[in-house]
Amino acid sequence: MGAVSDVLSQLETLLGASGFTTDPVVSESYLAEWRGRYRGETPFIALPTNSREVAEIVRICARAGIAITPQGGNTGLVGGQIPQGEVLVSLRRMKRILDIDPLTDSMTVEAGVVLANVQAAAANIDRLFPMSLGSEGSATVGGLISTNAGGVHVMRYGMMRDLVMGLEVVLPNGQVLSALQPLRKDNTGYDLKHLFVGAEGTLGIVTAATLKLCPRSREHVVALAAVNSADDALSILQMLRSATDSLTAFEIMNAACVQVAVEQTPVLRHPFPCWKSWVVLIEFQAVRDVGLMETVEHLLADAMEAALIADVIIANSERQSREFWHLRESISGAQRALGAQSNHDISVPVSAVPEFLRSAAIAAHGVLSDVRILAFGHAGDGNVHYTVAMPATGSASEFENARAAIAEAVYSVVMKLGGSFSAEHGIGVARRDDLYRFKSSVALELMKAIKTSLDPQGIMNPRAMLRR
Amino acid sequence: MGAVSDVLSQLETLLGASGFTTDPVVSESYLAEWRGRYRGETPFIALPTNSREVAEIVRICARAGIAITPQGGNTGLVGGQIPQGEVLVSLRRMKRILDIDPLTDSMTVEAGVVLANVQAAAANIDRLFPMSLGSEGSATVGGLISTNAGGVHVMRYGMMRDLVMGLEVVLPNGQVLSALQPLRKDNTGYDLKHLFVGAEGTLGIVTAATLKLCPRSREHVVALAAVNSADDALSILQMLRSATDSLTAFEIMNAACVQVAVEQTPVLRHPFPCWKSWVVLIEFQAVRDVGLMETVEHLLADAMEAALIADVIIANSERQSREFWHLRESISGAQRALGAQSNHDISVPVSAVPEFLRSAAIAAHGVLSDVRILAFGHAGDGNVHYTVAMPATGSASEFENARAAIAEAVYSVVMKLGGSFSAEHGIGVARRDDLYRFKSSVALELMKAIKTSLDPQGIMNPRAMLRR
Repeated sequence: MGAVSDVLSQLETLLGASGFTTDPVVSESYLAEWRGRYRGETPFIALPTNSREVAEIVRICARAGIAITPQGGNTGLVGGQIPQGEVLVSLRRMKRILDIDPLTDSMTVEAGVVLANVQAAAANIDRLFPMSLGSEGSATVGGLISTNAGGVHVMRYGMMRDLVMGLEVVLPNGQVLSALQPLRKDNTGYDLKHLFVGAEGTLGIVTAATLKLCPRSREHVVALAAVNSADDALSILQMLRSATDSLTAFEIMNAACVQVAVEQTPVLRHPFPCWKSWVVLIEFQAVRDVGLMETVEHLLADAMEAALIADVIIANSERQSREFWHLRESISGAQRALGAQSNHDISVPVSAVPEFLRSAAIAAHGVLSDVRILAFGHAGDGNVHYTVAMPATGSASEFENARAAIAEAVYSVVMKLGGSFSAEHGIGVARRDDLYRFKSSVALELMKAIKTSLDPQGIMNPRAMLRR
Repeated sequence: MGAVSDVLSQLETLLGASGFTTDPVVSESYLAEWRGRYRGETPFIALPTNSREVAEIVRICARAGIAITPQGGNTGLVGGQIPQGEVLVSLRRMKRILDIDPLTDSMTVEAGVVLANVQAAAANIDRLFPMSLGSEGSATVGGLISTNAGGVHVMRYGMMRDLVMGLEVVLPNGQVLSALQPLRKDNTGYDLKHLFVGAEGTLGIVTAATLKLCPRSREHVVALAAVNSADDALSILQMLRSATDSLTAFEIMNAACVQVAVEQTPVLRHPFPCWKSWVVLIEFQAVRDVGLMETVEHLLADAMEAALIADVIIANSERQSREFWHLRESISGAQRALGAQSNHDISVPVSAVPEFLRSAAIAAHGVLSDVRILAFGHAGDGNVHYTVAMPATGSASEFENARAAIAEAVYSVVMKLGGSFSAEHGIGVARRDDLYRFKSSVALELMKAIKTSLDPQGIMNPRAMLRR
């Protein structure tokens, strides 16, 4: 332990009294995962304020072969940000906006800037940063990049990787890759940026990024539709995509999702109280007034005419639009009330979503009858958040005994349909065994070769993604 | 040479009589670069018909340590596809469309499928494959992916990498990475796909790809505008982007470009015969009739009102739209008539395009007065194709003496503005020295580490991009 205490004292000297924390209460916000599924431990919580300090931290640790877990807003869903003995490097204090250029539609920020602040800074110059997700008040740019976050606007604007133009990364040897360029095109060698996006901090620590902005939407319309089946939802999606350039979100929720969200969220009311099937949230945006409301009314009337929609409510105010989104965004938290459950974040080809939903439900019920299925998500991306919860009248222990078989049943449907076992939440610790089961050996070998090549000591976030 | 002849006979046996060529006339189409700037040589031209054969070719060569140059449609602009002693693997015969799914908006094709055929197959199912560039009648999917091609619709739809969902790649050891998945989201480990896109065949041979399709545009409007300056062009771009979601291309051409295109292309007439400044081609598309023509008329009238546009012609027929595009696309070939010239494919932040144009012209004229400047390209991406041609009355040898200093002058402006010395054409052989001059040493080291890790023998396209 001589080496460790020596490293810690070097880190203390480097960072000064305000640059780390030993306070147990403060530490808790770094070590406890928000859902309580992971609880970490660390010899040191570093709170650097600039990339020079991050680089020096990495160099000090690298020399001693001590491992590091980088952390952003601690909102990750797969445990990749929680240390188990590694030095924790929190980027939260690195929250400066370094540059913003409305003509280039770009913004350069430090990694600790919270998504909501990026959105606000863009809005201040009449621009849009289009990433939007439930944890946007806490999630940081560095974490969003390292996990290649998704969210509700992927169909129109892409994942986080599609919104990054340049990166600054502290590499596992303490060198700094500086490529914070607001360039829309740059074909000069391998695209290193894409290697670090989604790497979950295993290849280096993202310390800053240049992000793409978009024109701001002046018009938006949100509607909730009651539909009879996922097939019908998909038909509506196709119809809308070929009829308008303004579709920005298409989110499906099964009846159980809507019910639990309404039950668990006092301010919410069921939009279609007697409806026992799917509800779809549909959002349209346009940069300028193009009579969007009228277009949407026509399109949704056409869909009712074609018997694809049973009922529909178009939000008639900003407030109602927010209520509709609140319903959708409450599901994830609300479903925890259903007790023991197996959560999956899967994707399949868009055309296979209905088939997935049918087959996965049959497969899950085959393992344990009366389980409750909660399915919601980004149908336009083929991405379904799929939860199998314990029967309403069953016991948690009975469910726990069946958990592995249920997950297996769901995954086997995903694999049969050529899908992904982790569409947007990543691997972290939670899906690491699945990675080794489902990823092709050639892909795994390539990943390991890259990891070894960049981080031969294996000190960067060693518990996430690849096994040591 | 025993080893080489042994390898060649193994390749002959593997591929059969129709699987390679020794015919000097046929060989010429693989060895001669279309502009005549590169002339290659090879001991063997392999013409495989499937990825299994490609993998076997690579295994045979890898065992003997013999290098390979992969080639698509032989339309590359930087010499990366021309072998100098390597075995040439042409993908041209691998031209099957393997799968096409209008519900998922995806298409899986072999690497040798020509871009125009991808576009046509998409149109057949009422979809759009949005990549569009001058060489689309010859360029293949594999080449477009390996060079991360750009083109005229990047502003709206992205580069080739943004249109790829999955890849099949034969690795330098002959293993096959199979990831032909039509998934819009998949966060299961490092994004290996992006490593091979733009790698110019130095990390493996792309043998097939799953591509993204889009809804087809039913309405389009093309206009040519006469504008006084690049600053005004940029102001128009900003105005249009914030006023409509329908802008799909914004291409600038200086007066010299328009003049040489008209002079060298008999069917073209000058759209604004007395105009001696910039011409901008502006394209708008919408998936369905939304009164686009009326919107465009209003917007361009506003721009004239604001004195940003001096004159404008909106195409009144499909034929005239094609004529406008023909003017833009003729420049690249036509400018060769101007004799000795230094060509650059640069990008800068969009806001810096006018400053680049001003400073680069001053810098180039400072080296050799009376040089002619041809500047055109994708202003919406900050990407300018910038040519400095010998003075009309000067001598080619005088220009050749100044060539290096001219290129240096242009690049120093690019670098000062934080730009890229190769925005969309790549590195190949032509820009390799520039890569070593301008890329950061940290980035170069990472590139070399990745190359060494995947291709320790250095047999995959060894002359392109990185030095051996």
